[in-house]
Amino acid sequence: MKQVKVFLDESEIPKQWYNIQPDMPTPMSPPLHPGTGLPVGPDDLAPVFPMNLIEQEVSTERWIDIPEEVLEKYMLWRPTPLYRARNFEKLLDAPVQIYYKNEGVSPPGSHKPNTAVAQAYYNKVFGIKRISTETGAGQWGSALSMACKMFGLECRVFMVRVSYDQKPFRGLMMNVWGANCIPSPSDKTEAGRRVLAENPDSPGSLGLAISEAIEDAVGNEDSRYALGSVLNHVLLHQTINGLEAEKQLKMIGVYPDVVIGCTGGGSNFGGLCLPFVRDKIHGKELSIVCAEPTSCPTITRGPFAYDFGDMAQTTPLLAMHTLGHDFVPAPIHAGGLRYHGMAPIISHLVKEHLLEARAYNQIQTFEAGIKWARSEGFISAPETNHAIAAVVQEAERAKEEGKEKVILFNWSGHGLVDLAAYDAYLSGKLVQYDMPEEEIARALKAIDGLPKP
Amino acid sequence: MKQVKVFLDESEIPKQWYNIQPDMPTPMSPPLHPGTGLPVGPDDLAPVFPMNLIEQEVSTERWIDIPEEVLEKYMLWRPTPLYRARNFEKLLDAPVQIYYKNEGVSPPGSHKPNTAVAQAYYNKVFGIKRISTETGAGQWGSALSMACKMFGLECRVFMVRVSYDQKPFRGLMMNVWGANCIPSPSDKTEAGRRVLAENPDSPGSLGLAISEAIEDAVGNEDSRYALGSVLNHVLLHQTINGLEAEKQLKMIGVYPDVVIGCTGGGSNFGGLCLPFVRDKIHGKELSIVCAEPTSCPTITRGPFAYDFGDMAQTTPLLAMHTLGHDFVPAPIHAGGLRYHGMAPIISHLVKEHLLEARAYNQIQTFEAGIKWARSEGFISAPETNHAIAAVVQEAERAKEEGKEKVILFNWSGHGLVDLAAYDAYLSGKLVQYDMPEEEIARALKAIDGLPKP
Repeated sequence: MKQVKVFLDESEIPKQWYNIQPDMPTPMSPPLHPGTGLPVGPDDLAPVFPMNLIEQEVSTERWIDIPEEVLEKYMLWRPTPLYRARNFEKLLDAPVQIYYKNEGVSPPGSHKPNTAVAQAYYNKVFGIKRISTETGAGQWGSALSMACKMFGLECRVFMVRVSYDQKPFRGLMMNVWGANCIPSPSDKTEAGRRVLAENPDSPGSLGLAISEAIEDAVGNEDSRYALGSVLNHVLLHQTINGLEAEKQLKMIGVYPDVVIGCTGGGSNFGGLCLPFVRDKIHGKELSIVCAEPTSCPTITRGPFAYDFGDMAQTTPLLAMHTLGHDFVPAPIHAGGLRYHGMAPIISHLVKEHLLEARAYNQIQTFEAGIKWARSEGFISAPETNHAIAAVVQEAERAKEEGKEKVILFNWSGHGLVDLAAYDAYLSGKLVQYDMPEEEIARALKAIDGLPKP
Repeated sequence: MKQVKVFLDESEIPKQWYNIQPDMPTPMSPPLHPGTGLPVGPDDLAPVFPMNLIEQEVSTERWIDIPEEVLEKYMLWRPTPLYRARNFEKLLDAPVQIYYKNEGVSPPGSHKPNTAVAQAYYNKVFGIKRISTETGAGQWGSALSMACKMFGLECRVFMVRVSYDQKPFRGLMMNVWGANCIPSPSDKTEAGRRVLAENPDSPGSLGLAISEAIEDAVGNEDSRYALGSVLNHVLLHQTINGLEAEKQLKMIGVYPDVVIGCTGGGSNFGGLCLPFVRDKIHGKELSIVCAEPTSCPTITRGPFAYDFGDMAQTTPLLAMHTLGHDFVPAPIHAGGLRYHGMAPIISHLVKEHLLEARAYNQIQTFEAGIKWARSEGFISAPETNHAIAAVVQEAERAKEEGKEKVILFNWSGHGLVDLAAYDAYLSGKLVQYDMPEEEIARALKAIDGLPKP
């Protein structure tokens, strides 16, 4: 019988995260204080994040030990299986081997708890009692809720109201894990009250939810803010997945020609790909592909520039691919990919030509996702379907070129609470959502006048 | 670091199912033809099931080879991990080791595909093109939808209308796998039309949905009916799980004192427990516990008697624990446990004192499920919470008695599409639903005059 899954024994779980910063071919542009234009120091961030996470954010150590307490929580679902998608290969009928990491086996069903558990732990150790965060589609909010409960922390999640109403299951999941999920705009913060006063029926936005969460967290000794993607320490925590994949592929004597992940803020992508980027920096030949939505084509259409991480301009300026902090992406079902910016690490690697990016429209991604579900069984998150669309494209190319290829991708989560999106696709109601040139040009005006990296 | 999960390598997956019939200490009472009162023969069942499954239903072979094609599909999620619930143990603070099989890692999220894949395969081999079935809460319907798609069969699922409306995600899941999910009563069958004529707004019932599915399947050379629990061949297919558990426990040198599963029709319970029942028959000392709802206390309160499998009296008479085929259980969220009868194999083993049964009310089960989610992370199906309630009770007893115990149970599925039930619990709206004596007495009138086993 042909092997489908490679299990990594728990004793073999990586004991350190991989930090790519010391391996970068050129130094990254530092985050800037929007007022002074000077690089932000740890003290500037201290009201927002605990100092131990800030140290990780700026660390130049290549390997960072994973605390025993974090490993213990990881064990609830990690190491995740490496799969070979034999049925999907058969369906595509191309000269490719397709491997994927199944991150959907975690309790909330995605890769998000890899960093949620770590962040909750470091906050706990630093003496923090409550974490505030925002969530769009709800994957991050639910992961952090679980992690906080495990370390005895209070958790408050500001969820964009339109998602809160459309995806009630994610909010309920947070409640099961004892968190407080609040639709944003809320009356809990100045920022929220201001918006509600203007428009009591405001659907909210991710930018506003971030502002509410930060406001809720800062100014209180016992509370801090947490972010589920974009930042260096978030990508760092996610590398556990790529490091596992490396070991698992070695066990079966395979090395990928192409590594693929979907990109919203960059965390699931970075988690799988960064260890392979290191190989590429050291001379290995392979393609590493970011799969993003055509409705929010941050890397393929946005410039590399300094921009705010949020709409309300409360964060430091980050050097990254961006569509402008005012940009409001179309309401695609892949809520986790609706972000105007991109992780500075990923953006820098694109600039160094170590990564390439491709955009897929919503219809394409669900087409791919349905093929996947009907051959491999698993129903993918709408975000994950972008990676699958890229796999399909790679397979078609391999077929055209008559070239054998080994593909590895991150199956970042399941879509069991996103079934309404599949229903829309199957009933022909799904909108494609491409981005007209003029809309990009308009959005990019928001970064006029900001410093250039 | 302490071990949490035991992975079984794919090469170690059991290659045969275990059939308990030859090991039964006394012979089981045969199914009877309701008209003649005589034992039903294979030919009586031929219009309903394919002959290769009928042969398994009556087989006296102890070991039955699992076809290569079925094993290949099993590999998509099997072998499932055996977990040790260390965090839950800590929370309960009792002298117990708690192990569980995580059947939630399958694509539809439960144990159901263990038999769905096998049944689809045997139908396919027999030349069948379309399978009809019914589903209550939707776990079975979604599992069979996936299995049919994998073997290129058409699948038609009659879903009780009230569930169809309340749990739209399960129906959508079936659509993703290409099945046709029809709310029952429907206008597709005589049985459905009859009910609709009387009451166009009928909420439907499992009994009626079975009648619709059978009517839809029979009388057509190319189509057959499939059942997701109760029958011997269904429990047979599920034993893959218990056989894996045996191997995994052996790997760590552990043998359980108590084995627990929740019981609706008996299939997830049988799947885990039957291999351990065999040990008990051969002299091993252990308790094997059926956990059922107080609102549908089939084993704890229903007699062992001959009864119909469905409300419409279309099935043979089965010798089983039953509350009477007219019994309509209260609308608890554990839809998979709302069945008036019990698998004849399980019922016979209860009669032989090889199993014991305990009933838990809905509030207790969600109390246990919330404790579980907040320590182990995973959110359980409402059905599974019954098994967890039994684990809690066993742990409390062990503590009182000051006796160390090893507990094994079947975590039969996740509750990610059942979050409305958790919401009801957390907001204090969950109803306890016990069964008044007079209601049981009334329900049991339905079996007056039927033959006795």
